[in-house]
Amino acid sequence: MASAARRPRGPVGLCGALMGPLGICSALMGPFGLCSALLGPLGLCSALLGPLGLCSALLGPLGLCSALMGPLGLCSALLGPAAATTTNIVLLLMDDMGWGDLGAFGEPSKETPNLDQMAAEGMLFLDFYTASPLCSPSRAALLTGRLPVRNGFYTTNGHARNAYTPQDIVGGIPDSELLLPELLKKAGYTNKIIGKWHLGHRAQFHPLKHGFDEWFGSPNCHFGPYNSTERPNIPVYRDWEMVGRYYEDFKIDLKTGEANLTQLYLQEALDFISKQQASQQPFFLYWAIDATHAPVYASKQFLGTSQRGLYGDAVREIDDSVGKILKHLQQLGISESTFVFFTSDNGAALISAPKQGGSNGPFLCGKQTTFEGGMREPAIAWWPGHIPAGGVSHQLGSVMDLFSTSLSLAGLQPPSDRQIDGIDLLPVILQGKLIDRPIFYYRGNELMAVRAGLYKAHYWTWSNSWEEHSKGIDFCPGQSVAGVTTHTQEEHTYLPLLFHLGRDPGEKYPLSFASEEYQRAVEHISGLVQQHKATLVPGQPQLNVCDQAVMLPFGRSCFAPGTCSEQPRGLSPLPAQQTLIPHSWSTLRTQILEGNFALESN
Amino acid sequence: MASAARRPRGPVGLCGALMGPLGICSALMGPFGLCSALLGPLGLCSALLGPLGLCSALLGPLGLCSALMGPLGLCSALLGPAAATTTNIVLLLMDDMGWGDLGAFGEPSKETPNLDQMAAEGMLFLDFYTASPLCSPSRAALLTGRLPVRNGFYTTNGHARNAYTPQDIVGGIPDSELLLPELLKKAGYTNKIIGKWHLGHRAQFHPLKHGFDEWFGSPNCHFGPYNSTERPNIPVYRDWEMVGRYYEDFKIDLKTGEANLTQLYLQEALDFISKQQASQQPFFLYWAIDATHAPVYASKQFLGTSQRGLYGDAVREIDDSVGKILKHLQQLGISESTFVFFTSDNGAALISAPKQGGSNGPFLCGKQTTFEGGMREPAIAWWPGHIPAGGVSHQLGSVMDLFSTSLSLAGLQPPSDRQIDGIDLLPVILQGKLIDRPIFYYRGNELMAVRAGLYKAHYWTWSNSWEEHSKGIDFCPGQSVAGVTTHTQEEHTYLPLLFHLGRDPGEKYPLSFASEEYQRAVEHISGLVQQHKATLVPGQPQLNVCDQAVMLPFGRSCFAPGTCSEQPRGLSPLPAQQTLIPHSWSTLRTQILEGNFALESN
Repeated sequence: MASAARRPRGPVGLCGALMGPLGICSALMGPFGLCSALLGPLGLCSALLGPLGLCSALLGPLGLCSALMGPLGLCSALLGPAAATTTNIVLLLMDDMGWGDLGAFGEPSKETPNLDQMAAEGMLFLDFYTASPLCSPSRAALLTGRLPVRNGFYTTNGHARNAYTPQDIVGGIPDSELLLPELLKKAGYTNKIIGKWHLGHRAQFHPLKHGFDEWFGSPNCHFGPYNSTERPNIPVYRDWEMVGRYYEDFKIDLKTGEANLTQLYLQEALDFISKQQASQQPFFLYWAIDATHAPVYASKQFLGTSQRGLYGDAVREIDDSVGKILKHLQQLGISESTFVFFTSDNGAALISAPKQGGSNGPFLCGKQTTFEGGMREPAIAWWPGHIPAGGVSHQLGSVMDLFSTSLSLAGLQPPSDRQIDGIDLLPVILQGKLIDRPIFYYRGNELMAVRAGLYKAHYWTWSNSWEEHSKGIDFCPGQSVAGVTTHTQEEHTYLPLLFHLGRDPGEKYPLSFASEEYQRAVEHISGLVQQHKATLVPGQPQLNVCDQAVMLPFGRSCFAPGTCSEQPRGLSPLPAQQTLIPHSWSTLRTQILEGNFALESN
Repeated sequence: MASAARRPRGPVGLCGALMGPLGICSALMGPFGLCSALLGPLGLCSALLGPLGLCSALLGPLGLCSALMGPLGLCSALLGPAAATTTNIVLLLMDDMGWGDLGAFGEPSKETPNLDQMAAEGMLFLDFYTASPLCSPSRAALLTGRLPVRNGFYTTNGHARNAYTPQDIVGGIPDSELLLPELLKKAGYTNKIIGKWHLGHRAQFHPLKHGFDEWFGSPNCHFGPYNSTERPNIPVYRDWEMVGRYYEDFKIDLKTGEANLTQLYLQEALDFISKQQASQQPFFLYWAIDATHAPVYASKQFLGTSQRGLYGDAVREIDDSVGKILKHLQQLGISESTFVFFTSDNGAALISAPKQGGSNGPFLCGKQTTFEGGMREPAIAWWPGHIPAGGVSHQLGSVMDLFSTSLSLAGLQPPSDRQIDGIDLLPVILQGKLIDRPIFYYRGNELMAVRAGLYKAHYWTWSNSWEEHSKGIDFCPGQSVAGVTTHTQEEHTYLPLLFHLGRDPGEKYPLSFASEEYQRAVEHISGLVQQHKATLVPGQPQLNVCDQAVMLPFGRSCFAPGTCSEQPRGLSPLPAQQTLIPHSWSTLRTQILEGNFALESN
């Protein structure tokens, strides 16, 4: 396993020696940028300076206040504007939330005042993408900074098939992958995941084995309820321990849509932040909540409050929660030393609309597709005192950039022994730069499309099969673009379909093959594709094989909190050899909802 | 002709007698709300107080500063918070701009910083409608406060046919209709229309015969260029005089899209505002520009500046111009005494997309249809010191409300001898109230749909005919909802299609007929429809008959600025009897673009 190089941090010892006993923070920077700050033993610097806004005034536009605080409350020297920081990192990752779901992105009900305010105080990313139109691969990409085809979160069971990690998936995040929290630990971060993990069910894939220090949440979606004699309900964990199951210990009322999970996840976040602030430990919080994933839910106090029905209730509760998290950071005086990013794992699940699915605004189709509706995400960066308020960026961004950007915030270099697809967005966020980079739209093992600048070339088009479509499963309800939203897999490798996303964000008007504009753009994009493919080393596909035994949560035999009950009928110990056992209990709808094609035999 | 009653304004004479000679404005309100303001002879009150923001502070939350200034610079008494004002009124009416065209409404390029700022400083209306999905009827409704089916702006040539005022239309706005500027004159307003009139071509329909004092613009769209031997180019007027024609004296380069018309319209607006401010005359400015109507145009400095292509260039220039108008009001110190409203005449013309048409965001279809994309409009109210910044309203609003709201601003009552469909939005705008009222979606002579609350019932569905559609004319490109976006006129009178626009703004999921929700909502809406139809007195249809002779602009024989040339060949004097002369020169595309069905024979 390669290690991430730590950037030099200057004369820490010297600086720590200068810390005064009275807790008075008088940030004074010498002519050479050396740290001569006098910091109290309790590390109250950011707490004192944050709310008064004095720090950034003293330290310049890059707001390096938090840089004064080392990972253990020590003072790190500042060696110019590129010096490392120990900025806290909060990634707010939504589940199946679409680009068009927030007021700031044009949702007609405009019921997200806190997120809209977050955007007004921060930076709105209008061209931000996921790395896969499905949940597990997207999350694996975010945490590794690498495309799913590299980190193994794809299937070869079928061409361009989406796959994820159902309860009985055998694969998961390989040990060879370096996850963001693993790397952040090297900079002294405490890492917590709240909510959905989704990178595998077997013991070796447990998030605390991959860099997280704490976990409250589940390895999977909150599908169910299941008949525990055939299939257990999805477990919920606190750290290593299973503390219950959805529908049993963590109630979800499918009839009313009531569940208090978002409140639990909110409280977990607030408590973690408080604890970290008190201990002056830098932290990475990965808040991967799932109220907007079908079955959609909201707490009682939010039920019926939205114009949009239950889905909107869920969004309102999330909006309220995000507002409380940001306010908490402000009240603790650490908002200027905490980088917060809000985005979603894939486009809205239109198959679940209108009651259980969100909106992709003006974009084509939704989750599971490589049209804009499937992969363009709402995205907001927030970091008061650093990001100019009301910023808008057209940087082509990716969830994988959150990996690289987080490392940069922590003063770490990305691993050099592997291809990292994410880029550091700090020059974009702090200096308004635009970095030229393509976006690759994968579906399973196939590169479906590529965006460069405002042009998007489709090498394959597909919504879903006629067979599925005839059963009412529609990834593009109410939308139909001839030759584009096809129900057969259409290859355009030699003559890609080209769209100009500025003039035509809805991908309705392919450019004429004969036009000079087409020739120029496709030539450019083809070069990028050749370069990409020439250096691509696909990872071992992780999502090919299922086995009921995997439903034994993380290798344990305890199925009730605090007790050890018998294994559910039909479950066997983890097999020495991974075996494909065809499942029989999932409904087709559940499979399709999650693109659960991995369940199919080879 | 009925007169509009003027609300009592208190002891004007007394108040005027108190005006001091030094131009010092010390607004002092007595215990009974009587005006004891001392106003200088030059009426500098608002100019002095506006920029300092003192006035609204002295006069309370409703900001009645401008109420101190009578139409002739006299002081009107204030008799409580409902007292009349002489607030200036600026209506910024766009042409074919869609709900989704502004950044504040979610356009992905987010290229409208001035309009977004206007919204941030004012109130965003998210549920604001036009009265017709086509230009002429929409504008007639705005200026009369009445549905086109009442004011005559419809055709009976075909069922549910859209019609407008092509060059050879015989009809126009009837004398019996009371237009907003006519009424505002009674309150001392000077009224100017800049841009497109669109309410008739014959002399009796000239805007200066219907209450406007000034005009710079055209009676029609800027279609062309035409061969003047068969059909003249569209004339442009300054007041009574034709000052030239599009493509001749007012250049539009169809190849590059370059035209400086928006700059001319901007300068006209700035000059008019300056003049009115200097003379302390209250004013109504109707800025009805048309750069976003095909053929779309922009000035050289804006060409190529948008991600969205030429259409976006036009939007950027409009955005820039609106910013300059608002800034001008602020610099003149009259922003707090000027109510500004921005909206559009109908949905984006998707038939002209992507190069010449805009965006209706997440809504279904576009111009010419009664789906949300055809009739829901971007709308922003701006009135610093009166409207709380950042307001958002879900009031069901209509362009016809601009009639009633403007009268209210002027202290006038709407005419009492006729049905007015507009409502006064001031309680919505100033006090955040929500007024229960339905929205009627007409297409020609047919009530196609009705919205009440979040429910919309379709009594007829139709996009366009198969015949048109087969020729590539598509009002819903890329969109297709089975049984909804039909190419035959489908009647649902006895079992309306019902949508919940909160859960389903895109009108994709009709509610189950059997559901209790359906029964309840349809029962309510049916009552509204019965009430509406029972009292409906349709006006004489104005858009049934065309005649080439009407192309003689406003009855004159001068076809070149400053000269009197011969009449174009084939034109005859205005006929004593209106005669239907089938046209032969328009292309089908031009007809369809403007819904020019009036040209068809009975």
